[in-house]
Amino acid sequence: MINHRGPEFRALLPELESGLRWAFQTENDILIFPASGTGGLESAVANLLSPGERVLAVTIGAFGDRFADLAAAFGADVARYTLPWGEAADPEDLDDLLRREPDIATVLITHNETSTGVTNRLQALAEVVKRHQRLLVVDGVSSIGSIDLPVDRWAVDVAITASQKGWMLPPGVTMLGVSKAAWERQRSAKAPRFYFDWDRARKLQSKGMTFTTPALGILFGLREALTMMREEGLAAIFRRHLRIAAAFRAAAAALDLRLLADPEVASPTVTAIYFPDALAGEKSETVLKSWRDLGLVLGEGQGQLAGKIFRIGHLGAVYEDDVVATVQALERGLEANGHPVRRGAALAAARRALESSEPSLVA
Amino acid sequence: MINHRGPEFRALLPELESGLRWAFQTENDILIFPASGTGGLESAVANLLSPGERVLAVTIGAFGDRFADLAAAFGADVARYTLPWGEAADPEDLDDLLRREPDIATVLITHNETSTGVTNRLQALAEVVKRHQRLLVVDGVSSIGSIDLPVDRWAVDVAITASQKGWMLPPGVTMLGVSKAAWERQRSAKAPRFYFDWDRARKLQSKGMTFTTPALGILFGLREALTMMREEGLAAIFRRHLRIAAAFRAAAAALDLRLLADPEVASPTVTAIYFPDALAGEKSETVLKSWRDLGLVLGEGQGQLAGKIFRIGHLGAVYEDDVVATVQALERGLEANGHPVRRGAALAAARRALESSEPSLVA
Repeated sequence: MINHRGPEFRALLPELESGLRWAFQTENDILIFPASGTGGLESAVANLLSPGERVLAVTIGAFGDRFADLAAAFGADVARYTLPWGEAADPEDLDDLLRREPDIATVLITHNETSTGVTNRLQALAEVVKRHQRLLVVDGVSSIGSIDLPVDRWAVDVAITASQKGWMLPPGVTMLGVSKAAWERQRSAKAPRFYFDWDRARKLQSKGMTFTTPALGILFGLREALTMMREEGLAAIFRRHLRIAAAFRAAAAALDLRLLADPEVASPTVTAIYFPDALAGEKSETVLKSWRDLGLVLGEGQGQLAGKIFRIGHLGAVYEDDVVATVQALERGLEANGHPVRRGAALAAARRALESSEPSLVA
Repeated sequence: MINHRGPEFRALLPELESGLRWAFQTENDILIFPASGTGGLESAVANLLSPGERVLAVTIGAFGDRFADLAAAFGADVARYTLPWGEAADPEDLDDLLRREPDIATVLITHNETSTGVTNRLQALAEVVKRHQRLLVVDGVSSIGSIDLPVDRWAVDVAITASQKGWMLPPGVTMLGVSKAAWERQRSAKAPRFYFDWDRARKLQSKGMTFTTPALGILFGLREALTMMREEGLAAIFRRHLRIAAAFRAAAAALDLRLLADPEVASPTVTAIYFPDALAGEKSETVLKSWRDLGLVLGEGQGQLAGKIFRIGHLGAVYEDDVVATVQALERGLEANGHPVRRGAALAAARRALESSEPSLVA
């Protein structure tokens, strides 16, 4: 550990800020807090909203619901634009909504919904929000650094991420980009804030410190992660994630498994797949355990999707060899639980997708 | 990393809770959040207070002020019982204050004030608070696990600590003990809360999970730290801290340096020492740099004590060899900056204190 009010930290912090600006594709201020991604979302709500204020939450899954609940907990009057789980938000519907509700000053959107493996068409949604001149706050926890999100080009006012996702780090740090318009709004917003107060955070960061004790261990890792990311290059990182996601979708199809998301909005960082009917419900626990015994740890379905789907997380330090190992274990675990499998077909399909030069793009 | 909604974490979490209950000397619920200690304090404010409510903050330094500011930021009407920096709170004054203000339902007290190296006489203060039947919230960030704080015996309703202090871990996790009376209060408290909501935290922890993604890396370390602490034993840990603090005070005296705190309330975990007059102010930076060049990183004075004092942190994994190395560097750095030094006297004084079987006790 180092003194977080000493010269080593004063050297480290600006290096992290500039690396994050590069990864966020932004000139905005970068703020860093010791907290999980939900803490980053709370900081946006506490710094931008006032009790009683009308706000729109676009929710396509569990994390969208969480963002909406968070705003409600801070006293906002939350309008929810809720999509069925597995679907993405429709820019035209958003346009209608904002036209009907001129009082909404802020729109909360999840870029990549981890619970369903769906990536919103953020560029199109952002265009709508900006056409209506509303503030745009994006939960980019599982997208920034893995999925293209050019913060300045798309005029995202607040973009939020967390260390354990594309940054390849242990959980415990949330990072945000904050635009001039968001700072402007912050001055008049009345929700209470202290730990997550952006003003205090910026003042101290400008002096090479953080307001409270920073999660140093994770920040040391972040320096290394940013170095690795610069070496690979953002465009290459985004392409790698797209290729790997396409490979998992191809493997699922070859295993006769149904995907939750439409391929057009399927996430480059997490793939949600239905259990075969014969293995859904209680049996799904057994299948997950079989996979665990093979060294493959997959996510369960959350909320209304519990027992119905499983989720493969593939963001950050995930490479082609990991796809091969995962697909093999996937196949073996299914076969062991009686699912009919043509051995090797899934792996062959995955390999073909990995070799394809033009992975499908979400934008 | 492991799946924080999987079986390994479901095994880890109860082990940590039970270890923390042991270290907190409590049967109360233990809650764990990814945040610095200030986040733990905020969780207490957000879960216990309501806007407009009168609350008493006992402040003997920068962290006491922070706790008071935090309550004010959440809309509480804060009465401040403020002591000059370097002094501890007086139980009789606290008694008078609470008698005069029957509307105060909650008292916020810093146990060990890191900015001044003063430990409040918490047992006596807690007796007063309990005699008046108020809720007692204790910032034990730099005390619990290092300084005796028998939470249940002293009837502390909320006790808060953080990973980077007595727990010998990187910063990023805050841990709290919450009493039945505090849970009762939480039900009627109206401050907004979401990330730090105790109710959500307890519900999820009872299922072997946390509400948001936990800071896994630090929690793995906590398991090991608790094992080490159980091996040494709480009483031995507390005695070690008292002995080491006494050694630093003895070394300071032998170096003709003045202590900020009265020895009766001097902290077992951090010692604040005045710079000699000739080295105070701007020159203090040079002295701190000399020490750093010798491998000794000391804390500067905060706020009104900037340039006047330096602080030696000695909590957690600090043993007799560390005292020896620190005192030697202390002496050399002072000598290099022209402070008259009788070589070896400080070390001899420190050694005598370390060997003493009856270190002075704060209670």
